[in-house]
Amino acid sequence: MIVNPALARTRPSPVVEAKRWIAGKTFSPEAPLINVSQAAPLDPPPIEMRQAIANLALNLPGAHVYGPVRGLPELRVEVARQFSQAYGGTLSSDNVAITQGCNQAFCAALATLAGAGDEVILPTPWYFNHQMWLDMAGVITVPLPTGDELLPTVAEAEARLTARTRAIVLVTPNNPGGVEYPADLVMGFFRLARDNGIALILDETYRDFHSRAGRPHDLLTRADWDSTVIQLYSFSKAYRLTGHRVGALITAPERLRAVEKFLDTVAICPNQLGQQAALWGMRNLGDWLAGERDEILARRVAVEEGFAKLPGWRTLGAGAYFAYVEHPFDEASEALCKRMVDEIGVLALPGSMFNPDGMGDTQLRIAFANIGMRQIDSLFARLATLRTP
Amino acid sequence: MIVNPALARTRPSPVVEAKRWIAGKTFSPEAPLINVSQAAPLDPPPIEMRQAIANLALNLPGAHVYGPVRGLPELRVEVARQFSQAYGGTLSSDNVAITQGCNQAFCAALATLAGAGDEVILPTPWYFNHQMWLDMAGVITVPLPTGDELLPTVAEAEARLTARTRAIVLVTPNNPGGVEYPADLVMGFFRLARDNGIALILDETYRDFHSRAGRPHDLLTRADWDSTVIQLYSFSKAYRLTGHRVGALITAPERLRAVEKFLDTVAICPNQLGQQAALWGMRNLGDWLAGERDEILARRVAVEEGFAKLPGWRTLGAGAYFAYVEHPFDEASEALCKRMVDEIGVLALPGSMFNPDGMGDTQLRIAFANIGMRQIDSLFARLATLRTP
Repeated sequence: MIVNPALARTRPSPVVEAKRWIAGKTFSPEAPLINVSQAAPLDPPPIEMRQAIANLALNLPGAHVYGPVRGLPELRVEVARQFSQAYGGTLSSDNVAITQGCNQAFCAALATLAGAGDEVILPTPWYFNHQMWLDMAGVITVPLPTGDELLPTVAEAEARLTARTRAIVLVTPNNPGGVEYPADLVMGFFRLARDNGIALILDETYRDFHSRAGRPHDLLTRADWDSTVIQLYSFSKAYRLTGHRVGALITAPERLRAVEKFLDTVAICPNQLGQQAALWGMRNLGDWLAGERDEILARRVAVEEGFAKLPGWRTLGAGAYFAYVEHPFDEASEALCKRMVDEIGVLALPGSMFNPDGMGDTQLRIAFANIGMRQIDSLFARLATLRTP
Repeated sequence: MIVNPALARTRPSPVVEAKRWIAGKTFSPEAPLINVSQAAPLDPPPIEMRQAIANLALNLPGAHVYGPVRGLPELRVEVARQFSQAYGGTLSSDNVAITQGCNQAFCAALATLAGAGDEVILPTPWYFNHQMWLDMAGVITVPLPTGDELLPTVAEAEARLTARTRAIVLVTPNNPGGVEYPADLVMGFFRLARDNGIALILDETYRDFHSRAGRPHDLLTRADWDSTVIQLYSFSKAYRLTGHRVGALITAPERLRAVEKFLDTVAICPNQLGQQAALWGMRNLGDWLAGERDEILARRVAVEEGFAKLPGWRTLGAGAYFAYVEHPFDEASEALCKRMVDEIGVLALPGSMFNPDGMGDTQLRIAFANIGMRQIDSLFARLATLRTP
């Protein structure tokens, strides 16, 4: 059977793979599976939003038919307004496209920038779907190692620039690392990208759960931001809309004309009811979201404290939905994760799934946002029982 | 600003372009715009389905959160069951993936087959989004001309095979041509593809509006179908769900493992509520859909009769949602379409948008599925007033 070699070489999805590790297995009612593998709210959105979606499904005919390729105009206006306020910028809806989820926003951005043989710089550990898309498109991933604090440096990125470099991708707060990139570091990467005529893709899927008050960086206050910056956002996490697939891409109108070709071909348009839900959320769930953020930040503290007390484990980064940690075992991280399923009923993803071949074997990603305080206690009680294989 | 040359070369979407031709223009209440540019139901789904969607939004928590990458298991089972029945095959749900619309199914299929420099054969006139995706991916489109009946021949396709050919794409009933490919022609293309170890992509978006009873081809009755055939389907037209973005891809389980990598990266999963709506439609709207089909077939007859009476115009193909016609003017089709907006308040798409450069200038596509019988009468009354420029 004929298969495109670039796709054959692309690794399978870690989330799908990990689901196979638990397929067919049963866990006792006293110790049910603790699933810290995926960054996804398990609960549906609040009832008021579900009622709003139901009303729209019944009464808004436009919620069922094609809409504009770039998305619902009212949602684009609202994103421009709230992001201008949050980042001190002056976005207009002409800077905004809505996508079928934030992964698609990344794919669209990349399609406008790079083709087979071009290069894109990704700090490691990376978000696996970013790297998978580059592999599929025949674009060369240039890994940018980060140190113990999981922060890349501008100098090391600069040393990796070539004539084929098309973009640098930063994810902040980071997936899988959890780390929040300091504003001056983000600005340093902006200058590097701008001075070299390449794009800076800033994936801010987890921006609503940033621990610091105020804007996380100053890029959008610059008059010249949009010829360099492509900002990506997801409505999935903030409003528990993962199943509706709605994201956003924010950049220069000129690039959006290219993005539009990609979206027309891959998506035709984002789904209408999901966009209506995102709009309703942005207009009505501000206070609710602030409470969600407090809860996630409290879980983060509990997880950091838990690892600090656990002998031999070390937290490299924590924030957003994730802790990225070093484990104490002389065992490859994938083998350890499989063993954890069987021995302690915990499903986490191995560091090797977020890194180039041969790296990340001492590390795990723990997606803690889905589990409450009691499950966090239980997670650490179980981890404490893990012994050397 | 850096732009991937492959994307820069890709033509913009005809539908988006055509919307710009009418932007800001007003049409008199006595002669409102007749829009025959897009193949989209304008009405929402029947009230029973809207009620079902509303109930699910309220009461099914899983309708709001991530689901399996390949789609809702119950929907995959239902597609396998109904398609097995309709095509005389023995599909299982392992042959089915659900996508964010049928365009995405095509992109996913192609990504598993071809990379930059590979070749794919498309009969002309082609469905523009297919050709746009090939351009974006750096895949070479090999046009396969069709004659006056808009049917490609196996011999002409064979003459275009090279070592880089990865697939032949057939759309039946055809967009934009309307023509329904005979079963033996489809089988001839299957044999050609199989014997040469390439894929046959069969886009059957409009299968529910096929004019003939019984199965439209016999491919799925073959034991060896799935190593060659990739069948694409859309729930958008049958159940008026264009705004929900749900399609399907049907092929070998082995290829679906590659498709899954693409879908995980671009989509994560199809939207849940749209999938639930499609499932509800498949289970409950069989009779309703039969009525919709009768109505579309009646419109087709009216459109064919209309063009037969219109001096100088000629129907090359009619079926599905489309008539593909030759106009009598010594004028490029794009100029004619723009003139038609201004002179007679009719928006159609020019043949040049469905063909390689320099071809299709004597042709137009008329998407008649959206307009009722009175509008069809009005369309022909207006076309009769068009004079040489």
